[in-house]
Amino acid sequence: MHCVKCGEKAAINMRQHKLALCPHHFLDWIPEQVERSIKRYHMFTKEERLLLAVSGGKDSLSLWDILLHLGYTVDGLYIELGIDGGIDYSARSLEYARVFAQEHNLNLLVQDIRHEYGETIPELTARTHRGRYKPCSVCGLTKRHVMNQIAVTNGYTVLLTGHNLDDEAAILFGNTLSWVGSYIVRQGPVLEADRTGLGRKVKPLCRLYEREMAAYALLRGIAYMEDECPFAVGSTSIYYKELLNKLESDRSGAKLSFYLSFLQAKRNGLFSDKVDDRAEQIHPCPKCEQPTSAPGLCAFCRMFANPDEQSQSLQLEP
Amino acid sequence: MHCVKCGEKAAINMRQHKLALCPHHFLDWIPEQVERSIKRYHMFTKEERLLLAVSGGKDSLSLWDILLHLGYTVDGLYIELGIDGGIDYSARSLEYARVFAQEHNLNLLVQDIRHEYGETIPELTARTHRGRYKPCSVCGLTKRHVMNQIAVTNGYTVLLTGHNLDDEAAILFGNTLSWVGSYIVRQGPVLEADRTGLGRKVKPLCRLYEREMAAYALLRGIAYMEDECPFAVGSTSIYYKELLNKLESDRSGAKLSFYLSFLQAKRNGLFSDKVDDRAEQIHPCPKCEQPTSAPGLCAFCRMFANPDEQSQSLQLEP
Repeated sequence: MHCVKCGEKAAINMRQHKLALCPHHFLDWIPEQVERSIKRYHMFTKEERLLLAVSGGKDSLSLWDILLHLGYTVDGLYIELGIDGGIDYSARSLEYARVFAQEHNLNLLVQDIRHEYGETIPELTARTHRGRYKPCSVCGLTKRHVMNQIAVTNGYTVLLTGHNLDDEAAILFGNTLSWVGSYIVRQGPVLEADRTGLGRKVKPLCRLYEREMAAYALLRGIAYMEDECPFAVGSTSIYYKELLNKLESDRSGAKLSFYLSFLQAKRNGLFSDKVDDRAEQIHPCPKCEQPTSAPGLCAFCRMFANPDEQSQSLQLEP
Repeated sequence: MHCVKCGEKAAINMRQHKLALCPHHFLDWIPEQVERSIKRYHMFTKEERLLLAVSGGKDSLSLWDILLHLGYTVDGLYIELGIDGGIDYSARSLEYARVFAQEHNLNLLVQDIRHEYGETIPELTARTHRGRYKPCSVCGLTKRHVMNQIAVTNGYTVLLTGHNLDDEAAILFGNTLSWVGSYIVRQGPVLEADRTGLGRKVKPLCRLYEREMAAYALLRGIAYMEDECPFAVGSTSIYYKELLNKLESDRSGAKLSFYLSFLQAKRNGLFSDKVDDRAEQIHPCPKCEQPTSAPGLCAFCRMFANPDEQSQSLQLEP
């Protein structure tokens, strides 16, 4: 397999694009694709204050690298979730993010949720009803809340995340299997700041496959946390990714087509305008002031409202 | 595993319903479910003239059997497609349909497409552009056209098909993977006769799994064509069924939930009313008078409009 641009030995073959590229041309191609997404979906300009959620993994560190290459100024935000899982997960992930930031002379904000809210993700998982059997639900809620809060209170106009196409397709697939209308209609490369207290969120990697991001990190020599989160093993999102990978291996481009045809159908008016009219019932949480559709406190603040709530297993102890 | 109703040895365990039943109670349960679907989706009454599309397979023959059991009067329609495939497919399928009709003293209409239109499905597949690599496309178009034409011209108010949940879920899955809005919004247990020349179509088995229909046919001793259509091997619809079966085996009820939550989302107004406004551009085909959105002849009549069209392989011959 040879690079279609120069004939050198190809480093990667992207069957969905019928495109094989050598390392050199692949490392040009990826930032071009990201720039195209930024422009196509009107994500942000070089004049805006940008905050990137950095996990220490390949996607977010590669995205930071790409954005620098493209001439954007971006600060990073690492959320210290306090996950050990026998592999010192959070501490090691933070270290990868720190090293990258230092080497590139970048600002990295670190928010430690134990310090800020008194509990780590494993502790919240053990204590709360939401957490029972579902650490990913507690973690997702926490990250969304903290990312938004830091972005808004620090005057960033756009929050960037490293979600790649595999992430986006798996989320869409899950929401479509159960036809959760309000989630389906809001999915996309850009989530507008259309509610008071809510920042703008964008996903510049939404058209790039996970394997492309892994190849980019490898070829750029970016050191990143390779272990999956120990809590994510057996999660629904990983299951859907595997199913979509099966589909992709049988029909090249199936994942990309699933996501892009969804965006096209949305632009073509497939969905009713009424689905997302929850906005009318949205109000600011009395505690944190982030928008919520729940009566009273938002789901995040409710998680901390009753600190004496114990997990079922603890309650059963004599 | 024991029957939840009488404690006898169960013949089938339906994990998605947490329901195990013995043969006796299963054979009661299936018609009850069909009757519930007929009522729930307002499919038809006992006073209407009903025509059932019969393929000779387990679904359509079992549905005929169930409808008799429930006291409906239903005529059958067999479409002779002229498929041999080395296993005498169409002729044997017709024989199963004929035997069932004779044994139960039922009317079976037979429409032979070679006799009526001059060509079999394999011949149409070989000759037409649509047919190239896609016999299922030619066959589906033909069956839809012929079923509708026979139902409308013979004064049947409702056309019934034996589509089961696996069929419906696979169709929905395919349409969702490519987000074909106009197909998605029209899918459901009932397709209304909302256009001149179009009969009402209903699918009374839409909530029943394929394995349940196979069990019903077996336990009722219904002789049916067990071979798949030789053209369907490797087809997209079978591929999607396999993928959904993988999902179902990992998560019981996933198929049913996918289909029912879609119907619920549709009722809840997820889709825009505008998607299906093709109706405005619909006109009767100048030849067959069935509704079409194509300019000029409908797709079916177009297939016969140019009988000199040759398949690519024939054209390439010296």
